[in-house]
Amino acid sequence: MTAELSAILAANQEFYEAFAKGDLARMDRVWAQRAPVVCIHPGWGALTERAGIMQSWRNILGEGGAGIRAVGPRVFRYGALALVVLQEMLPGGMLMATNGFVQEDGGWRMVLHQAGPLSAIAEEPPSPARN
Amino acid sequence: MTAELSAILAANQEFYEAFAKGDLARMDRVWAQRAPVVCIHPGWGALTERAGIMQSWRNILGEGGAGIRAVGPRVFRYGALALVVLQEMLPGGMLMATNGFVQEDGGWRMVLHQAGPLSAIAEEPPSPARN
Repeated sequence: MTAELSAILAANQEFYEAFAKGDLARMDRVWAQRAPVVCIHPGWGALTERAGIMQSWRNILGEGGAGIRAVGPRVFRYGALALVVLQEMLPGGMLMATNGFVQEDGGWRMVLHQAGPLSAIAEEPPSPARN
Repeated sequence: MTAELSAILAANQEFYEAFAKGDLARMDRVWAQRAPVVCIHPGWGALTERAGIMQSWRNILGEGGAGIRAVGPRVFRYGALALVVLQEMLPGGMLMATNGFVQEDGGWRMVLHQAGPLSAIAEEPPSPARN
Protein backbone atom coordinates (compact mmCIF):
# COMPACT_ATOMS: atom_id res chain seq x y z
CA MET A 1 0.00 0.00 0.00
CA THR A 2 1.37 3.43 -0.88
CA ALA A 3 1.91 6.07 1.79
CA GLU A 4 -0.75 8.19 0.13
CA LEU A 5 -3.33 5.43 0.17
CA SER A 6 -2.53 4.78 3.83
CA ALA A 7 -3.03 8.46 4.62
CA ILE A 8 -6.42 8.53 2.86
CA LEU A 9 -7.60 5.43 4.70
CA ALA A 10 -6.32 6.87 7.99
CA ALA A 11 -8.32 10.06 7.42
CA ASN A 12 -11.38 7.95 6.71
CA GLN A 13 -10.77 5.89 9.85
CA GLU A 14 -10.36 9.09 11.87
CA PHE A 15 -13.88 10.08 10.80
CA TYR A 16 -15.28 6.81 12.12
CA GLU A 17 -13.35 7.02 15.37
CA ALA A 18 -14.63 10.55 16.02
CA PHE A 19 -18.11 9.26 15.21
CA ALA A 20 -17.84 6.13 17.38
CA LYS A 21 -16.43 8.06 20.32
CA GLY A 22 -18.85 10.98 19.99
CA ASP A 23 -15.90 13.38 19.82
CA LEU A 24 -17.10 16.60 18.19
CA ALA A 25 -13.73 18.39 18.33
CA ARG A 26 -12.14 15.48 16.52
CA MET A 27 -15.01 15.41 14.01
CA ASP A 28 -14.46 19.12 13.41
CA ARG A 29 -10.81 18.50 12.56
CA VAL A 30 -11.81 15.76 10.10
CA TRP A 31 -13.72 18.17 7.84
CA ALA A 32 -12.09 20.56 5.37
CA GLN A 33 -11.94 24.21 6.31
CA ARG A 34 -11.80 25.85 2.87
CA ALA A 35 -12.93 23.37 0.22
CA PRO A 36 -16.69 23.10 -0.41
CA VAL A 37 -18.30 20.48 1.82
CA VAL A 38 -21.36 18.28 1.33
CA CYS A 39 -22.95 16.01 3.93
CA ILE A 40 -25.98 13.81 3.30
CA HIS A 41 -27.06 11.86 6.37
CA PRO A 42 -29.45 8.93 5.78
CA GLY A 43 -32.87 10.30 4.90
CA TRP A 44 -31.72 13.92 5.03
CA GLY A 45 -31.34 16.55 2.37
CA ALA A 46 -27.86 17.81 1.56
CA LEU A 47 -26.05 20.02 4.05
CA THR A 48 -23.61 22.23 2.18
CA GLU A 49 -22.54 24.79 4.77
CA ARG A 50 -19.73 23.81 7.12
CA ALA A 51 -21.53 25.32 10.14
CA GLY A 52 -24.70 23.37 9.37
CA ILE A 53 -22.74 20.16 8.96
CA MET A 54 -21.03 20.67 12.31
CA GLN A 55 -24.39 21.43 13.93
CA SER A 56 -25.72 18.14 12.55
CA TRP A 57 -22.78 16.28 14.08
CA ARG A 58 -23.31 18.14 17.35
CA ASN A 59 -26.87 16.75 17.38
CA ILE A 60 -25.86 13.25 16.33
CA LEU A 61 -22.83 12.98 18.62
CA GLY A 62 -24.73 14.65 21.46
CA GLU A 63 -26.67 11.41 21.74
CA GLY A 64 -23.33 9.77 22.57
CA GLY A 65 -20.98 7.83 20.35
CA ALA A 66 -22.48 5.25 18.07
CA GLY A 67 -21.44 1.65 17.71
CA ILE A 68 -20.37 2.36 14.17
CA ARG A 69 -17.72 0.47 12.26
CA ALA A 70 -16.39 0.92 8.73
CA VAL A 71 -16.14 -2.26 6.69
CA GLY A 72 -14.27 -2.83 3.44
CA PRO A 73 -13.17 0.71 2.52
CA ARG A 74 -12.08 1.08 -1.11
CA VAL A 75 -10.32 4.17 -2.45
CA PHE A 76 -10.86 5.77 -5.87
CA ARG A 77 -8.77 8.72 -7.05
CA TYR A 78 -9.87 11.60 -9.24
CA GLY A 79 -6.98 14.02 -9.28
CA ALA A 80 -7.09 16.06 -6.09
CA LEU A 81 -10.10 14.21 -4.72
CA ALA A 82 -10.14 10.74 -3.20
CA LEU A 83 -13.38 8.85 -2.70
CA VAL A 84 -13.63 6.13 -0.06
CA VAL A 85 -16.56 3.74 -0.54
CA LEU A 86 -17.49 1.40 2.31
CA GLN A 87 -20.19 -0.19 4.40
CA GLU A 88 -21.07 1.25 7.79
CA MET A 89 -22.11 -1.31 10.38
CA LEU A 90 -24.41 0.09 13.03
CA PRO A 91 -26.44 -1.63 15.75
CA GLY A 92 -29.60 -0.83 13.78
CA GLY A 93 -28.42 -2.02 10.38
CA MET A 94 -25.99 -1.41 7.57
CA LEU A 95 -25.42 1.70 5.50
CA MET A 96 -23.54 2.23 2.27
CA ALA A 97 -21.35 5.31 2.40
CA THR A 98 -19.21 7.45 0.15
CA ASN A 99 -16.66 9.76 1.73
CA GLY A 100 -14.63 12.32 -0.20
CA PHE A 101 -11.29 13.79 0.86
CA VAL A 102 -8.96 16.49 -0.44
CA GLN A 103 -5.63 17.69 0.86
CA GLU A 104 -5.59 20.81 3.03
CA ASP A 105 -2.64 21.97 5.15
CA GLY A 106 -0.76 18.78 4.45
CA GLY A 107 -3.50 16.36 5.50
CA TRP A 108 -6.54 14.71 3.95
CA ARG A 109 -9.75 16.43 5.00
CA MET A 110 -13.34 15.32 4.42
CA VAL A 111 -15.38 17.21 1.83
CA LEU A 112 -18.16 14.68 1.17
CA HIS A 113 -20.11 12.23 3.28
CA GLN A 114 -23.20 10.46 1.99
CA ALA A 115 -24.70 7.44 3.72
CA GLY A 116 -27.86 5.54 2.90
CA PRO A 117 -29.51 2.31 3.98
CA LEU A 118 -28.20 -0.94 2.57
CA SER A 119 -31.03 -3.40 2.12
CA ALA A 120 -28.82 -6.42 1.39
CA ILE A 121 -25.18 -7.35 1.77
CA ALA A 122 -25.06 -8.66 -1.81
CA GLU A 123 -23.02 -6.43 -4.11
CA GLU A 124 -25.15 -7.15 -7.15
CA PRO A 125 -28.73 -8.12 -6.34
CA PRO A 126 -30.49 -9.73 -9.30
CA SER A 127 -33.49 -7.45 -9.54
CA PRO A 128 -33.03 -3.80 -8.68
CA ALA A 129 -35.80 -1.75 -7.21
CA ARG A 130 -35.19 1.85 -8.03
CA ASN A 131 -38.17 3.49 -6.43
CA MET B 1 -23.25 30.85 -15.44
CA THR B 2 -19.91 29.85 -16.88
CA ALA B 3 -19.65 27.62 -19.95
CA GLU B 4 -18.02 24.96 -17.80
CA LEU B 5 -20.81 24.99 -15.24
CA SER B 6 -23.35 24.74 -18.07
CA ALA B 7 -21.50 21.75 -19.49
CA ILE B 8 -21.47 19.96 -16.13
CA LEU B 9 -25.18 20.57 -15.60
CA ALA B 10 -25.88 19.41 -19.16
CA ALA B 11 -24.00 16.15 -18.53
CA ASN B 12 -26.03 15.68 -15.36
CA GLN B 13 -29.25 16.38 -17.23
CA GLU B 14 -28.25 13.90 -19.95
CA PHE B 15 -28.05 11.20 -17.27
CA TYR B 16 -31.62 11.94 -16.17
CA GLU B 17 -32.93 12.04 -19.73
CA ALA B 18 -31.35 8.66 -20.51
CA PHE B 19 -32.90 7.38 -17.27
CA ALA B 20 -36.35 8.89 -17.90
CA LYS B 21 -36.45 7.61 -21.48
CA GLY B 22 -35.05 4.17 -20.65
CA ASP B 23 -32.32 4.69 -23.25
CA LEU B 24 -29.47 2.32 -22.41
CA ALA B 25 -27.19 3.42 -25.27
CA ARG B 26 -27.49 6.99 -24.10
CA MET B 27 -26.86 5.90 -20.50
CA ASP B 28 -23.75 4.07 -21.65
CA ARG B 29 -22.41 7.26 -23.23
CA VAL B 30 -23.03 9.18 -20.01
CA TRP B 31 -20.54 7.05 -18.02
CA ALA B 32 -16.75 7.44 -18.15
CA GLN B 33 -14.82 4.85 -20.11
CA ARG B 34 -11.44 5.00 -18.38
CA ALA B 35 -11.79 6.74 -15.01
CA PRO B 36 -12.84 4.55 -12.05
CA VAL B 37 -16.61 4.41 -11.68
CA VAL B 38 -18.83 3.91 -8.63
CA CYS B 39 -22.60 3.44 -8.64
CA ILE B 40 -24.73 3.00 -5.51
CA HIS B 41 -28.41 2.50 -6.27
CA PRO B 42 -30.84 2.97 -3.36
CA GLY B 43 -30.47 0.02 -0.99
CA TRP B 44 -27.69 -1.58 -3.03
CA GLY B 45 -24.05 -2.16 -2.33
CA ALA B 46 -21.48 -0.31 -4.42
CA LEU B 47 -20.97 -1.35 -8.03
CA THR B 48 -17.43 -0.47 -9.07
CA GLU B 49 -16.99 -2.27 -12.38
CA ARG B 50 -18.24 -0.50 -15.48
CA ALA B 51 -19.77 -3.71 -16.89
CA GLY B 52 -21.68 -4.36 -13.67
CA ILE B 53 -22.95 -0.79 -13.60
CA MET B 54 -24.20 -1.06 -17.18
CA GLN B 55 -25.86 -4.40 -16.36
CA SER B 56 -27.65 -2.71 -13.47
CA TRP B 57 -28.92 -0.01 -15.81
CA ARG B 58 -29.97 -2.65 -18.33
CA ASN B 59 -32.13 -4.20 -15.59
CA ILE B 60 -33.48 -0.89 -14.35
CA LEU B 61 -34.14 0.60 -17.80
CA GLY B 62 -35.47 -2.73 -19.07
CA GLU B 63 -38.52 -2.04 -16.95
CA GLY B 64 -39.07 1.04 -19.12
CA GLY B 65 -38.15 4.63 -18.49
CA ALA B 66 -38.95 6.04 -15.11
CA GLY B 67 -40.84 9.22 -14.32
CA ILE B 68 -37.69 10.67 -12.83
CA ARG B 69 -36.85 14.33 -12.59
CA ALA B 70 -33.81 16.12 -11.18
CA VAL B 71 -34.59 19.04 -8.89
CA GLY B 72 -32.26 21.77 -7.68
CA PRO B 73 -28.87 20.53 -8.92
CA ARG B 74 -25.91 22.24 -7.27
CA VAL B 75 -22.34 21.90 -8.51
CA PHE B 76 -19.21 21.61 -6.32
CA ARG B 77 -15.72 21.51 -7.86
CA TYR B 78 -12.71 19.61 -6.58
CA GLY B 79 -10.04 20.04 -9.23
CA ALA B 80 -10.75 17.56 -12.02
CA LEU B 81 -13.91 16.26 -10.40
CA ALA B 82 -17.29 17.99 -10.28
CA LEU B 83 -20.00 16.85 -7.90
CA VAL B 84 -23.65 17.56 -8.64
CA VAL B 85 -25.96 17.26 -5.63
CA LEU B 86 -29.70 17.20 -6.21
CA GLN B 87 -33.07 15.70 -5.39
CA GLU B 88 -34.56 13.04 -7.62
CA MET B 89 -38.34 13.12 -7.88
CA LEU B 90 -39.88 9.75 -8.69
CA PRO B 91 -43.49 8.57 -8.67
CA GLY B 92 -42.70 6.53 -5.54
CA GLY B 93 -40.94 9.25 -3.58
CA MET B 94 -37.90 11.45 -3.41
CA LEU B 95 -34.24 10.53 -3.38
CA MET B 96 -31.14 12.52 -2.56
CA ALA B 97 -28.39 11.98 -5.09
CA THR B 98 -24.75 12.82 -5.62
CA ASN B 99 -23.34 12.53 -9.12
CA GLY B 100 -19.66 12.89 -9.96
CA PHE B 101 -18.22 13.87 -13.33
CA VAL B 102 -14.72 14.13 -14.84
CA GLN B 103 -13.63 15.20 -18.29
CA GLU B 104 -12.89 12.49 -20.83
CA ASP B 105 -12.48 13.04 -24.56
CA GLY B 106 -13.57 16.63 -24.26
CA GLY B 107 -16.83 15.99 -22.42
CA TRP B 108 -17.99 15.51 -18.83
CA ARG B 109 -18.58 11.85 -18.04
CA MET B 110 -20.17 10.30 -14.96
CA VAL B 111 -17.88 8.54 -12.48
CA LEU B 112 -20.12 8.50 -9.39
CA HIS B 113 -23.81 8.05 -8.77
CA GLN B 114 -25.23 7.52 -5.30
CA ALA B 115 -28.92 7.87 -4.53
CA GLY B 116 -30.74 7.20 -1.29
CA PRO B 117 -34.22 7.82 0.10
CA LEU B 118 -35.08 11.29 1.29
CA SER B 119 -37.41 11.11 4.26
CA ALA B 120 -38.28 14.81 4.33
CA ILE B 121 -37.98 17.78 2.02
CA ALA B 122 -36.51 19.88 4.82
CA GLU B 123 -32.82 20.59 4.33
CA GLU B 124 -32.01 20.64 8.02
CA PRO B 125 -34.38 18.57 10.13
CA PRO B 126 -34.11 19.37 13.83
CA SER B 127 -33.44 15.90 15.17
CA PRO B 128 -31.39 13.52 13.05
CA ALA B 129 -31.86 9.78 13.18
CA ARG B 130 -28.66 8.14 12.20
CA ASN B 131 -29.55 4.48 12.56
